[in-house]
Amino acid sequence: MARLSRRRPHFTHPTQAIVAGFAAMIIVGTIILMLPISSTDPDGATFVEALFTATSAVCIVGLIVVDTPEFWTTFGEVAIMVMFQVGGFGIMTMGSLFVVLISRRIKLSSRLTAAAETKSLGLGDVRRVVTGVAKVSFLFESATFVILTLRLVIGYDEPLGRAAYVGLFHAVSAFNNSGFSLYSNSLEDFVVDPWITLPVAIAAICGGIGFPVLLELRRQIGNPRNWSLHTKLTVSMTLLLLPLGSGFMMLSEWNNDATMGTLDVPGKILSGFFHGAMPRSTGFNSLDVEQMNEATWLGTDVLMFIGAGSAGTGGGIKVTTFALLFFVIYAEIRGEPRVNIFDRQVSPRVQRQGLTIALLTIALCVGPTVFILLVEDAFPLDRVLFEVISAACTVGLSTGITSELHGGIQVLLVVLMFIGRLGPAVVATALALRQHTRLYELPEGRPIIG
Amino acid sequence: MARLSRRRPHFTHPTQAIVAGFAAMIIVGTIILMLPISSTDPDGATFVEALFTATSAVCIVGLIVVDTPEFWTTFGEVAIMVMFQVGGFGIMTMGSLFVVLISRRIKLSSRLTAAAETKSLGLGDVRRVVTGVAKVSFLFESATFVILTLRLVIGYDEPLGRAAYVGLFHAVSAFNNSGFSLYSNSLEDFVVDPWITLPVAIAAICGGIGFPVLLELRRQIGNPRNWSLHTKLTVSMTLLLLPLGSGFMMLSEWNNDATMGTLDVPGKILSGFFHGAMPRSTGFNSLDVEQMNEATWLGTDVLMFIGAGSAGTGGGIKVTTFALLFFVIYAEIRGEPRVNIFDRQVSPRVQRQGLTIALLTIALCVGPTVFILLVEDAFPLDRVLFEVISAACTVGLSTGITSELHGGIQVLLVVLMFIGRLGPAVVATALALRQHTRLYELPEGRPIIG
Ligand SMILES: [K+]
Ligand SMILES: [K+]
Repeated sequence: MARLSRRRPHFTHPTQAIVAGFAAMIIVGTIILMLPISSTDPDGATFVEALFTATSAVCIVGLIVVDTPEFWTTFGEVAIMVMFQVGGFGIMTMGSLFVVLISRRIKLSSRLTAAAETKSLGLGDVRRVVTGVAKVSFLFESATFVILTLRLVIGYDEPLGRAAYVGLFHAVSAFNNSGFSLYSNSLEDFVVDPWITLPVAIAAICGGIGFPVLLELRRQIGNPRNWSLHTKLTVSMTLLLLPLGSGFMMLSEWNNDATMGTLDVPGKILSGFFHGAMPRSTGFNSLDVEQMNEATWLGTDVLMFIGAGSAGTGGGIKVTTFALLFFVIYAEIRGEPRVNIFDRQVSPRVQRQGLTIALLTIALCVGPTVFILLVEDAFPLDRVLFEVISAACTVGLSTGITSELHGGIQVLLVVLMFIGRLGPAVVATALALRQHTRLYELPEGRPIIG
Repeated sequence: MARLSRRRPHFTHPTQAIVAGFAAMIIVGTIILMLPISSTDPDGATFVEALFTATSAVCIVGLIVVDTPEFWTTFGEVAIMVMFQVGGFGIMTMGSLFVVLISRRIKLSSRLTAAAETKSLGLGDVRRVVTGVAKVSFLFESATFVILTLRLVIGYDEPLGRAAYVGLFHAVSAFNNSGFSLYSNSLEDFVVDPWITLPVAIAAICGGIGFPVLLELRRQIGNPRNWSLHTKLTVSMTLLLLPLGSGFMMLSEWNNDATMGTLDVPGKILSGFFHGAMPRSTGFNSLDVEQMNEATWLGTDVLMFIGAGSAGTGGGIKVTTFALLFFVIYAEIRGEPRVNIFDRQVSPRVQRQGLTIALLTIALCVGPTVFILLVEDAFPLDRVLFEVISAACTVGLSTGITSELHGGIQVLLVVLMFIGRLGPAVVATALALRQHTRLYELPEGRPIIG
């Protein structure tokens, strides 16, 4: 069986291939978007505009510095759609291959299990994962595409061609959690239309829940007891966070006339649900985020930080990481040396990985926020923090300041989007492939904690 | 040798004694402050005013809802001073006893080492720690008292009696990191006077560095190689954070005419140093915090969160916890299964405790901030977050909104101050005294992280 690492002779490590691959996609995307044919501006897009948009698309973030339908031509829009499709596909595939690589407990197939000992991927594994992700993407995207297109034709009298184009763009955008929209105000015109917002939300949730979980659900949906710990955690966290997030949005925005205050009760519930789901790194909005209360922004910050499922198109620290931290704290407070979740225990190694991801992400959000506040006087903490978390956790929601930021700060956000998207996967992959052994052990020291 | 737990027959657990003791001090303090003799208001202080001030004093936080010199009589001021002296002494003693209890590696004395196996405290231990803390407090407070009094007499023509009273109050306040001041604008009048601000800062830093470190430094100051890991970490983090924090303050406020902008360069350096040191949970200010830039506030938030040393009068997650998290992440990224700091390794158990303290403190800051933003429309995120961190990390710096908050929110801050002060110690003590054993082990599960 050929080894993945042998088929990448130019890179000493798979993580370098991942980083180089995404960087190459961003460079190609930037060049395409700078072509005069891509933008409605006769001079073409500036380098920063093109770089920012290409990074946002490839890293499936969805933050924008120019209005998507106004600034880009149809050619540019299609280029962006291809970028977030390829980016989302790449993220999902890479994450799923990583799962195969590190752990055979996520029972992708019995065939893969045979390679458990080798710590490397066979070509068959790669082919199987790529095919599986492609099938799942096609299934969800085409179902969403059909519903959106029909609704735009029937409900909004759009010509079929236009409806199909808009439907396809938003279906691909939703499943890949890109958040790019062909409407300048995202989905605000459809705030009370469940035929638009619900399919979009469902596609986004399914894309964000991750390929391994989708696969396991398809095979074992009726047997929750047989699910892997990862699937149990992901599903229960999703079922917990969606109503919590939606409830919080309703609680916080119920009487805000600039957002859901003027809607009837079903409209409030629908838009509350939508905005409870969108911070799972999707990034569409049906209410005006800029007009939301500060509490809503901060609550959204928390949801964006938590993010969606592993090995999917969502971002953040991931719901499993968040749940794991909760169980670690619970065990610590109860004085339990072991961390048990459901009927499994989680090794100290995995606990430490969760801690590392969470703390690095916090640093990735707080550091740049301090820096931006230092150099940009015009923007308050709440908006800057929201925008930075949105970039680092690849969400794409915005309080509206990204396009007003200085070009240098926009480049900083580009770096944040790139690190936020690839950082955890690269660190995790690097760790899984390296075994570091020390020849001697140091005596134990015990600093006082707290 | 008599056991501590046997001498507290009314409490099943030492942690209950700690919590009950501090609660009792707060209740007594509240009653005293509600007496007509305590306040200049003929009706006396309201319950919330008295409760807030008593909690702030006993928990050595320093947040205020009424102006200390204006609102309280000299009787009230002395009562507050007694409260933060007793509170600070209690915190330092409790923390140091905990160190004796959990770890003989901090070599308090060879005598204590003999009890290493028992996991309980002898009366001799308690007496020795109490005497040691009292000596150290007396030493630092009296030195600071003398310098401040002399300076107020010589530099400001204060009558000796008044100078001694003000000097004593601020000396006790500084070493105990209480942050209460007899000046309505804290130490702003002395912003360029190193004879006032430097002794205050030094006393605060020494009080915050913690009793075990002070003791070890006294014995081994010339032999850094012999220091315990805890002392090495605390000293190096202090030496690292002070210039970093001071440099950040200068960088951020250098040209802000409402703070240090109008001062000459030595004044800027002195006030920058002072405000780099005060977020280590001291809480005095020589510049107007309300007029600082947002970046300064957020940077101060980070410093307040980190806090000072363990088993001292400071708060926050503690510099050792912060350093430990850094080393855990560093080890994780390098793929090292062990966490080595200097020439010692730190057990997974201690790593998990550090994680727990840090994440619980984050939750303790973010949760109430969201809640306050939900119910109070008038205040922006930056100020609310600052005030909440200041309370939970027992710092006492303020952007000026605490006195304007609704009474219910002030009570929430009371709870935060109490939990922020006692929570880590209670959790840590509880853990150290409990050994939880499971009779069976669960199989391992491996959720995907990040
Ligand atoms: K997104
Ligand atoms: K304080």
